[in-house]
Amino acid sequence: MIRNIKVEHLHETPIEKQEIELVERKGIGHPDSISDGLAEAVSRALCKEYIDKCGTVLHHNTDETQIVAGRSKPEFGGGEVIKPIYTLLVGRATKSFDGMEIPVESVALEAARDYVRNTIVDMDMERDMIIDCKLGTGSSDLRDVFHRDHVPMANDTSFGVGHAPFSELEQIVYNTERQLLTDLKKKKIPGIGEDIKVMGLRDKDDISLTICCGMVGKHIDDMDHYINAKEEMTEYVLDLATKYTERNVYAHLNTADDVEGGCDCVFLTVTGTSAEMGDDGSVGRGNRSNGLITPSRPMSMEATSGKNPINHIGKIYNLLATQMARDVVSTVDELSDVHVKLLSQIGQPIDQPLVANAQIIPEEGANFANIRSEAEVVMDDWLENITKITDMVIKGELDTF
Amino acid sequence: MIRNIKVEHLHETPIEKQEIELVERKGIGHPDSISDGLAEAVSRALCKEYIDKCGTVLHHNTDETQIVAGRSKPEFGGGEVIKPIYTLLVGRATKSFDGMEIPVESVALEAARDYVRNTIVDMDMERDMIIDCKLGTGSSDLRDVFHRDHVPMANDTSFGVGHAPFSELEQIVYNTERQLLTDLKKKKIPGIGEDIKVMGLRDKDDISLTICCGMVGKHIDDMDHYINAKEEMTEYVLDLATKYTERNVYAHLNTADDVEGGCDCVFLTVTGTSAEMGDDGSVGRGNRSNGLITPSRPMSMEATSGKNPINHIGKIYNLLATQMARDVVSTVDELSDVHVKLLSQIGQPIDQPLVANAQIIPEEGANFANIRSEAEVVMDDWLENITKITDMVIKGELDTF
Amino acid sequence: MIRNIKVEHLHETPIEKQEIELVERKGIGHPDSISDGLAEAVSRALCKEYIDKCGTVLHHNTDETQIVAGRSKPEFGGGEVIKPIYTLLVGRATKSFDGMEIPVESVALEAARDYVRNTIVDMDMERDMIIDCKLGTGSSDLRDVFHRDHVPMANDTSFGVGHAPFSELEQIVYNTERQLLTDLKKKKIPGIGEDIKVMGLRDKDDISLTICCGMVGKHIDDMDHYINAKEEMTEYVLDLATKYTERNVYAHLNTADDVEGGCDCVFLTVTGTSAEMGDDGSVGRGNRSNGLITPSRPMSMEATSGKNPINHIGKIYNLLATQMARDVVSTVDELSDVHVKLLSQIGQPIDQPLVANAQIIPEEGANFANIRSEAEVVMDDWLENITKITDMVIKGELDTF
Amino acid sequence: MIRNIKVEHLHETPIEKQEIELVERKGIGHPDSISDGLAEAVSRALCKEYIDKCGTVLHHNTDETQIVAGRSKPEFGGGEVIKPIYTLLVGRATKSFDGMEIPVESVALEAARDYVRNTIVDMDMERDMIIDCKLGTGSSDLRDVFHRDHVPMANDTSFGVGHAPFSELEQIVYNTERQLLTDLKKKKIPGIGEDIKVMGLRDKDDISLTICCGMVGKHIDDMDHYINAKEEMTEYVLDLATKYTERNVYAHLNTADDVEGGCDCVFLTVTGTSAEMGDDGSVGRGNRSNGLITPSRPMSMEATSGKNPINHIGKIYNLLATQMARDVVSTVDELSDVHVKLLSQIGQPIDQPLVANAQIIPEEGANFANIRSEAEVVMDDWLENITKITDMVIKGELDTF
Repeated sequence: MIRNIKVEHLHETPIEKQEIELVERKGIGHPDSISDGLAEAVSRALCKEYIDKCGTVLHHNTDETQIVAGRSKPEFGGGEVIKPIYTLLVGRATKSFDGMEIPVESVALEAARDYVRNTIVDMDMERDMIIDCKLGTGSSDLRDVFHRDHVPMANDTSFGVGHAPFSELEQIVYNTERQLLTDLKKKKIPGIGEDIKVMGLRDKDDISLTICCGMVGKHIDDMDHYINAKEEMTEYVLDLATKYTERNVYAHLNTADDVEGGCDCVFLTVTGTSAEMGDDGSVGRGNRSNGLITPSRPMSMEATSGKNPINHIGKIYNLLATQMARDVVSTVDELSDVHVKLLSQIGQPIDQPLVANAQIIPEEGANFANIRSEAEVVMDDWLENITKITDMVIKGELDTF
Repeated sequence: MIRNIKVEHLHETPIEKQEIELVERKGIGHPDSISDGLAEAVSRALCKEYIDKCGTVLHHNTDETQIVAGRSKPEFGGGEVIKPIYTLLVGRATKSFDGMEIPVESVALEAARDYVRNTIVDMDMERDMIIDCKLGTGSSDLRDVFHRDHVPMANDTSFGVGHAPFSELEQIVYNTERQLLTDLKKKKIPGIGEDIKVMGLRDKDDISLTICCGMVGKHIDDMDHYINAKEEMTEYVLDLATKYTERNVYAHLNTADDVEGGCDCVFLTVTGTSAEMGDDGSVGRGNRSNGLITPSRPMSMEATSGKNPINHIGKIYNLLATQMARDVVSTVDELSDVHVKLLSQIGQPIDQPLVANAQIIPEEGANFANIRSEAEVVMDDWLENITKITDMVIKGELDTF
Repeated sequence: MIRNIKVEHLHETPIEKQEIELVERKGIGHPDSISDGLAEAVSRALCKEYIDKCGTVLHHNTDETQIVAGRSKPEFGGGEVIKPIYTLLVGRATKSFDGMEIPVESVALEAARDYVRNTIVDMDMERDMIIDCKLGTGSSDLRDVFHRDHVPMANDTSFGVGHAPFSELEQIVYNTERQLLTDLKKKKIPGIGEDIKVMGLRDKDDISLTICCGMVGKHIDDMDHYINAKEEMTEYVLDLATKYTERNVYAHLNTADDVEGGCDCVFLTVTGTSAEMGDDGSVGRGNRSNGLITPSRPMSMEATSGKNPINHIGKIYNLLATQMARDVVSTVDELSDVHVKLLSQIGQPIDQPLVANAQIIPEEGANFANIRSEAEVVMDDWLENITKITDMVIKGELDTF
Repeated sequence: MIRNIKVEHLHETPIEKQEIELVERKGIGHPDSISDGLAEAVSRALCKEYIDKCGTVLHHNTDETQIVAGRSKPEFGGGEVIKPIYTLLVGRATKSFDGMEIPVESVALEAARDYVRNTIVDMDMERDMIIDCKLGTGSSDLRDVFHRDHVPMANDTSFGVGHAPFSELEQIVYNTERQLLTDLKKKKIPGIGEDIKVMGLRDKDDISLTICCGMVGKHIDDMDHYINAKEEMTEYVLDLATKYTERNVYAHLNTADDVEGGCDCVFLTVTGTSAEMGDDGSVGRGNRSNGLITPSRPMSMEATSGKNPINHIGKIYNLLATQMARDVVSTVDELSDVHVKLLSQIGQPIDQPLVANAQIIPEEGANFANIRSEAEVVMDDWLENITKITDMVIKGELDTF
């Protein structure tokens, strides 16, 4: 069956040539990101459990997690959580199969506790966080979808959105958070907390990065130590940015600090996340599935984390749209920007979207007819192999936030 | 102090001329919208309580509400909820002022129960829904903001996004849900539930509307009645659309129905919302503050509902950006699309954004210098009077979803 | 089959002749009693629902309810609850029958809200209390019990205890709370709250009653009004006691009051129960099924409220033991005190206790052989008709606390 | 000030000479006992935290814990919990002192998790149990009590009850549970779970023990192994009983088992407690503070576990009454049974009970005047040194269930 693929020539100023560009990333320790991470960790654990026990993934969507902030008393050299963070795992999951009960809530609880322990390394899971769980059962007709042998049917009328390539600013914002945690924290400054928010603004050729990073009290001896860490982090970020741009880059770290005011007046934490003190979190309110929030780009509102990777079209199409856009960019020449939008229709096979739309800004003088036909091939190929997205999700090869 | 207002000429195909356009609206009974509505209703009630008792709005953010779906057994002519919907109100609020305790949780509970009772009219609040509440106290430094006499300081580094005017498709999608509830349900078909999702796709000059509407069993006698109601609704929607467009319009209502299969195989509910059976909901995952989800337009991820209207910049700037864009469109001639983005800096006065950016697509042949200077005046004027947004929110004059 | 009935001559000082006697009653608005009442109200509603839908009572035990106290600010002429009371209904109930789902949690929620509204008349159910619900399903083997046609099998190895007749002090303590609410509150002093605790001490021929009664602010204008109400209540209680005794009676009402200290220093409430401010409550920690706590009498620890009246032996045997003791007293002459203890054995028919023991203190000179044989008849007869207890519970003819 | 101590000659058949005696003990893994243990563990941890941070114990009562049973699938050689047990810690605790916040909920959470881990050794705290926490703040006037320098004032009008010595049956029932866990489980049969309920009935000179013990699947290979373990346990119990009595003793272990029916038809568990499958639990519904339920003895309904040991008279007087009774027995000659009852009056010093009553059954021919005067000395001495009870509780030297 022929697919409804529409590749469109978009007449638009490419992002790098627009005057103002805004990009944000909420780091993995931001309360919204912890929610995303929990939702996805639970879904992955359920996929594994279902495959182990039933041979196939059963219906579930664990794409709702509510984090209710705690209270804390951070201090240099220590501090403590006063009131534990409360986390409620929410969703649906199939609880029995051929007469066998599946321990979905026990699996979810264990996966969630493991996830936080491994992600927010200074969180003490014995006293800093309560994880509660309310997983209902799904509606029965949706469950049927998973037993069929052919391509799954879309669970909803929904769309996914993706773009490529990343602009300079997008690369910088994304990698700033990533490198601070995976490189600088590990190698040199353990006091860097996981709750890092990077806001990037490009005003023509000036890039300014506003970074909020919750530092971890027990690894920071005093205010001097804190100030030195901030300076080192700022230098590190500026240095990192030069890999991605020749524009002017400015970095502002924890600008609300009042270093004269003592430890209560700087961004110090006990655990590394502001969820310990006043910041609640939910799934789907932070980064899109490409890891960024990009108001200058098409975006979907759909939460990607925690949804089942078999027929939840909001998840699959968001992940797929990004993969498609990236493949079009790497395969097709003479284009500067690609936006992909995929729209499903409830009950139809997921490889047959109602429309698969690519908007392409070609380079000046490019032959758009060629671009169109090459892009169509890439897109059709991905739709043909759409269950590859499912496999990659189950294997943990695709990030969702 | 001069404001950093940047009006930019955007070279882009206007939305009406792009080939593919996608627009979605989640109706007020969609679980995500109920969450939004609860969050905002609680915030408004708190504003009122604070003004009554303290003479001024105190710090609060009630922008997190988690709805955990129930279970139900819908039937023609009746049906019942099997397991109540569980709703957890989450957020922060100032609980004491000058030694007086403020009953924030009692106020929140009452406001929430009232909101649902008035919004989802067939919900029986005695047996269909549990409303629980966890409101913490905010961090103390944020509370200080509210005591100062001058323009409030931004609580965060965050941005707001808005656009104008609405495209034809945007008008149709928005008004379809609105009119079905405020007109057709009230006048003729009480069986229309509040959980209406409208997905609009424009493919050049063909507009297709996919509408999911949870019908309310107790107002629908049998399958014939159901089918008739659907037909009448479809005609109503097609007729309505002609007010906004001359393009071809197609409407598909509850396409997943299998009318041969009985009441379990059509979209029938007990209460009018799918939250009764399997669909969880959260704040900020549905409509943007203009009431729509528009992947072809710039959007913010920020949840607008439930945030305090004094200094929560994510709320104020989203509402303001839309107002600005609409005023620019109504004031300035010769332009086809306006996108506004406002970026704050934590701790700075909210009338002094780090940047206030308008991207304008002028009509062909327009004088952009004129457009720029006129738009700057509109934007500067709104920033000068930014607390008007606060007032409008408190008075309930601005929708947030 | 012959029953193991053991009637024993107890050589013991009868209660009226012991020097010291202690009796306590927690009124229906005491947090522990509210828990008991909720547990039993939910069980009765489930019995009704099961009979309506399935023709028979199905397995359930809703004998756990946790009340978490709120916070309040009582005032003369008004006051308000600051933080709602949180109530968690807990238990087990059969959720499906012949493929039909039973809305046990919706039924429980509605019954609980109704119960509180009708019992604690000044509680505003829209803002003063949250009722949450966690009802699991029972274990399957217990469920089988209910399908059999013969006498049910005991669900546990457990005992019930009862005594008769009530001593003077027992009658006074019981009726003091009852009459204050059903007579004086209704006719004359609406400010009497339902949370009344009566502690009675008899020291030879002096009876002192210590009464704690939470008064309801909105019905009490000021401190004078409060003081007058207390005086009137005290007189009423002293007058009432003369119906039951010729001993000296002293009554102390709200002795911890400091009337100079204003409304914060007397026992004033907003709703009529101390659950609004600091006093948590649970099922089974207050009155025994005869309505009293009597450390000078044999007692069972078993919670009677909320258990299913079909095979939950802890409930049935406690109610039965009291009925038996009362019937022995009214049928058999020449005895002063009867204590009944019934012990079940798990899995055995409930009309065949492991032992049914009556300890009887005969009047001086009585013929104990006659007493024994007459008492045995009464006890055997009750066991023969044990399902009458079940019927009485379902019809609401037996109090459980 | 002279204390109101009343020692009374009780004319009553001593317990060993009554025909029928009933005694029960719920083991430490029974859901009610787990609740008791959690309540007390949390209180002890708070005492320690308060002493560390404030130099003195502050007001708290954590005497409410609700356990909501999970679901499980036990199997020989393994099995798993399907749905985690949900535990809600409830109570009141002082949260700030001299401007310092005390992390009462974090401390409670950690203490609770530690307690279960150490007590129910086969419970996997990462996936088998959720511990949630709702600790409010107490009422302010109660908090004042703790700051005074003299003997604390009673927080309530309440009584405590105790008796001594233990009868033969009481000793056997108590030690059966204790020895099975501390001796036989540790040395030889790890498959013995902590949820052991012992019901003892003495019918003249025949003692029958009905024991329910949840066995732990992962330590039991198959049905033969299970049957052997039961036999070994039964022999152990019979042997143990001979230390305490010369009467005939019969033991019945897990009498509801159907060994033909496979692992679903015997009392097998995954974790060692029936809380995993259908049995909820609460504080104060099981053993009295002496470790037993004794319907043939005076008892108090008051929950002892979790209450603060400074001024919570329900706790102190129950513990004290038992200590007093035991000391009277060990000090005073020629008596067979002692019952002690202590009644407080709210607001009065705890060393001045409204009445301290001992009922003593002397041996035949004893001089009761001597007994009275000696008993009075013991009782007065304990009241004089009543804060010793507080110290013993804080040090963990007194069991509460």
